[in-house]
Amino acid sequence: MSPAATSPIRVTVWGENVHEQKHQVVRDLYPQGMHRCIADGLTEAEGITACCATLQDPEHGLSDEILDATDVLTWWGHAAHGQVDDKIVERVQRRVWEGMGLIVLHSGHYSKIFKRLMGTSCSLTWREAGEKERLWVCNPGHPIAAGIDRYFELPNTEMYGEPFGIPTPDEQVFISWFEGGEVFRSGCTWKRGQGRIFYFRPGHETYPIYHDRNVKTVLKNAVRWARPDGQTWKDTCPNVPIEQAPEPISKKGGSLHAPGEEGYK
Amino acid sequence: MSPAATSPIRVTVWGENVHEQKHQVVRDLYPQGMHRCIADGLTEAEGITACCATLQDPEHGLSDEILDATDVLTWWGHAAHGQVDDKIVERVQRRVWEGMGLIVLHSGHYSKIFKRLMGTSCSLTWREAGEKERLWVCNPGHPIAAGIDRYFELPNTEMYGEPFGIPTPDEQVFISWFEGGEVFRSGCTWKRGQGRIFYFRPGHETYPIYHDRNVKTVLKNAVRWARPDGQTWKDTCPNVPIEQAPEPISKKGGSLHAPGEEGYK
Amino acid sequence: MSPAATSPIRVTVWGENVHEQKHQVVRDLYPQGMHRCIADGLTEAEGITACCATLQDPEHGLSDEILDATDVLTWWGHAAHGQVDDKIVERVQRRVWEGMGLIVLHSGHYSKIFKRLMGTSCSLTWREAGEKERLWVCNPGHPIAAGIDRYFELPNTEMYGEPFGIPTPDEQVFISWFEGGEVFRSGCTWKRGQGRIFYFRPGHETYPIYHDRNVKTVLKNAVRWARPDGQTWKDTCPNVPIEQAPEPISKKGGSLHAPGEEGYK
Amino acid sequence: MSPAATSPIRVTVWGENVHEQKHQVVRDLYPQGMHRCIADGLTEAEGITACCATLQDPEHGLSDEILDATDVLTWWGHAAHGQVDDKIVERVQRRVWEGMGLIVLHSGHYSKIFKRLMGTSCSLTWREAGEKERLWVCNPGHPIAAGIDRYFELPNTEMYGEPFGIPTPDEQVFISWFEGGEVFRSGCTWKRGQGRIFYFRPGHETYPIYHDRNVKTVLKNAVRWARPDGQTWKDTCPNVPIEQAPEPISKKGGSLHAPGEEGYK
Repeated sequence: MSPAATSPIRVTVWGENVHEQKHQVVRDLYPQGMHRCIADGLTEAEGITACCATLQDPEHGLSDEILDATDVLTWWGHAAHGQVDDKIVERVQRRVWEGMGLIVLHSGHYSKIFKRLMGTSCSLTWREAGEKERLWVCNPGHPIAAGIDRYFELPNTEMYGEPFGIPTPDEQVFISWFEGGEVFRSGCTWKRGQGRIFYFRPGHETYPIYHDRNVKTVLKNAVRWARPDGQTWKDTCPNVPIEQAPEPISKKGGSLHAPGEEGYK
Repeated sequence: MSPAATSPIRVTVWGENVHEQKHQVVRDLYPQGMHRCIADGLTEAEGITACCATLQDPEHGLSDEILDATDVLTWWGHAAHGQVDDKIVERVQRRVWEGMGLIVLHSGHYSKIFKRLMGTSCSLTWREAGEKERLWVCNPGHPIAAGIDRYFELPNTEMYGEPFGIPTPDEQVFISWFEGGEVFRSGCTWKRGQGRIFYFRPGHETYPIYHDRNVKTVLKNAVRWARPDGQTWKDTCPNVPIEQAPEPISKKGGSLHAPGEEGYK
Repeated sequence: MSPAATSPIRVTVWGENVHEQKHQVVRDLYPQGMHRCIADGLTEAEGITACCATLQDPEHGLSDEILDATDVLTWWGHAAHGQVDDKIVERVQRRVWEGMGLIVLHSGHYSKIFKRLMGTSCSLTWREAGEKERLWVCNPGHPIAAGIDRYFELPNTEMYGEPFGIPTPDEQVFISWFEGGEVFRSGCTWKRGQGRIFYFRPGHETYPIYHDRNVKTVLKNAVRWARPDGQTWKDTCPNVPIEQAPEPISKKGGSLHAPGEEGYK
Repeated sequence: MSPAATSPIRVTVWGENVHEQKHQVVRDLYPQGMHRCIADGLTEAEGITACCATLQDPEHGLSDEILDATDVLTWWGHAAHGQVDDKIVERVQRRVWEGMGLIVLHSGHYSKIFKRLMGTSCSLTWREAGEKERLWVCNPGHPIAAGIDRYFELPNTEMYGEPFGIPTPDEQVFISWFEGGEVFRSGCTWKRGQGRIFYFRPGHETYPIYHDRNVKTVLKNAVRWARPDGQTWKDTCPNVPIEQAPEPISKKGGSLHAPGEEGYK
């Protein structure tokens, strides 16, 4: 058993923290912010520790030190995607490649970090009518669905509908049925570099989604699933000098690079 | 038979066009630029038309008009990836999502457009020793390998080695064996939105790669494979008003958005 | 333009043809059999020819000659999966590997050929209540969805629900919403060997599904999408004699095989 | 921490055990059989227990009781694939769907169980010349590659070459370079149902492959990676009675099935 598997999972819960400041309906549901509620839900589980970071913190709360000490990052944003600094987005992306898990929540489908990791539009259709959503488990043995029955329901949700502009997921964990007649791929996994990524649809700020028992269960499962399971790989583009080639070779033909020179990036 | 399938495929061959201006060895091999040589190779085939665009052209030669009239774009860059305007990169990415094919060549693995579409580091290892490369066909029935025997060889190439920092390809068409002892996933396909993407490894500027008969065959095949096969989908994030829900519903719960309002992006 | 792309697509429509003989409700809907109705729908399109084959025909109508002359095979079975000869299943599977397209319809999810190609259980949940189904397009630019709006509806269908025991599809084309509250991955693609496979959910024999205009459109699109696009690859496991190795080598170490001997299978 | 993660991993090492009985060169290398050597290598690791099963045992050593108590099964076969009882193959396949890990070794590419799970031909090219093989890590952070440097070498191996007739792997862990000039996808992962599958190329019976330190490391890593990480899902095809539909509906249209009846299989 590696130490990694028995030490606690260190989660950083990132919240945009804008609606909570501006809209009474959101503040009533989440008096300490949605991020705090999400973090509290996670730390109900033994073996998970969680701290919060927000858009308003220096470096959005995502310094190198903090990211280096983060096993899994959760991301909720909506109104202020454009205010997230590109430098920080690149830093987060690099940490995902190194193995940090990433859980993207609800309107985070349009966050810079999710669009960068997917390479697609990440668009969808939507409607805010407070309608019922039923999330079906596509894969009852998947660890992210542990403790969930065949489906669970949320009485009031914003609708997200297909087409969802994503690359084919590695695994489809949930698909949603909506009262108004739409469907949506609500729980999807991907891997980019060494990092595991889970997108989870529920989470509209005007409903008590993150207080829901089943949503909490899924998030705890997802954090366990997304924890790094390998060794960190610092990803560079190294030159292999001719004298270090596994088979003996010597230089032939033309060249632009001087010996030992770094490549273009 | 749809008109699309019988009309010529319109290719835009994009070339960075920097080494050709600076290095005599490259100019000798490609007196009119590598892009011109690639375009000439493509138009040997009936049913393919090709024009060129370079970094130095206004809008890098990739205006909306030109991209709208492009079925497949090929991309070769190396020394000046950082000089490609982010706005143009976004424009190309959007056209890929709409269905334009993209063929990324050699050192284009580190181009902005490829990294954006992959979401990964796209790094690799490399060595410039003019060594022999043998490209094996992993999938002899794949249309990109049509006319290629079990393998083909290039007598002098730059080596690219694993690990190659990409998401798992949809299909593996070629894998390379190098004289110096390395291997590399040299021909890979992906889809992003409606657009088909093919990465093809050979192409170092100091060797006559784009004069090679087999390389020309692969590029012609790839262009045919990458042509749009569907309808264009202009990708937005539309609100579905409550009264247009497929099933009759009425508004419940709290809300941030006024009726008909656009979503956050 | 290759001759393949302009010659007609030769479809063989395979029908189990059991319910049509036993149940008046099915005979009334499909007086000449479901297979005949499917074939008639396909040949409405220019460029598609279709013939029928049934369980009761010699070799189930799937002799080597017929399969060799088939570009795309459609498969409908339900009550008699177990009566399909394993030899014929292996023959069909081999032709798929060589490039023949395969379109598996409705209850064909449990056919021997589909289970063999998927390697999974292919199970699902079901209910026969004549409820409404709405099929959403997940990928509006996909050629299989050409001519379909954002969704289409079938007023009476058998319900199939998740979990659907399949490997992750290459592409998700349709997802269904059911009146009774379930969802299902109704249009999925895979590739096995050179052959393209499309599973399409609708098709219960007690409703006039194959008379529906949108279902006909999807089937015509699917046939065009599934036609072979490469060269046939006859798949063997050849020994490469030492003297034919691309790099000169000589024999070292122990051996079980005599020179030129075939491998174990 | 779930009990599963801290309890030992129970491995069953399946060996065909034919060459060891017939060929002195194999008996000399593996006096107690290849299976015993593989099992001994695995149990060097803390947290792994291993027992052996062979073709000659009753039920090939793979009774329901044994499979139910197996977390990960390794499979080596070559000369006698055809002698493995189809009933046992189906039993193993069902256990994979339920979550049992499966590690397929070398010539096991042509085993019934691997071909059934892949749905493809699983063919390749081969040569027995005792040549050198170098296995490159495509994904240095992957847990299966933990403790392996950029590559490792085997001085004498049978060559396997592309094309390898498999569905696209979920992840490419190793690719091999051969002295004679070929390449091969030597370490590949897939998931079928809940079960994780790893194919690992080395293992020819006439060389001391399973005594190699790096091979032992990979196998230990693979066993840890393949252990079940979810809950067991007993896969059936249940009818959902109308009165248990999540949304209230009533019966419409025609029917073949009496209420509560089982579906066709």
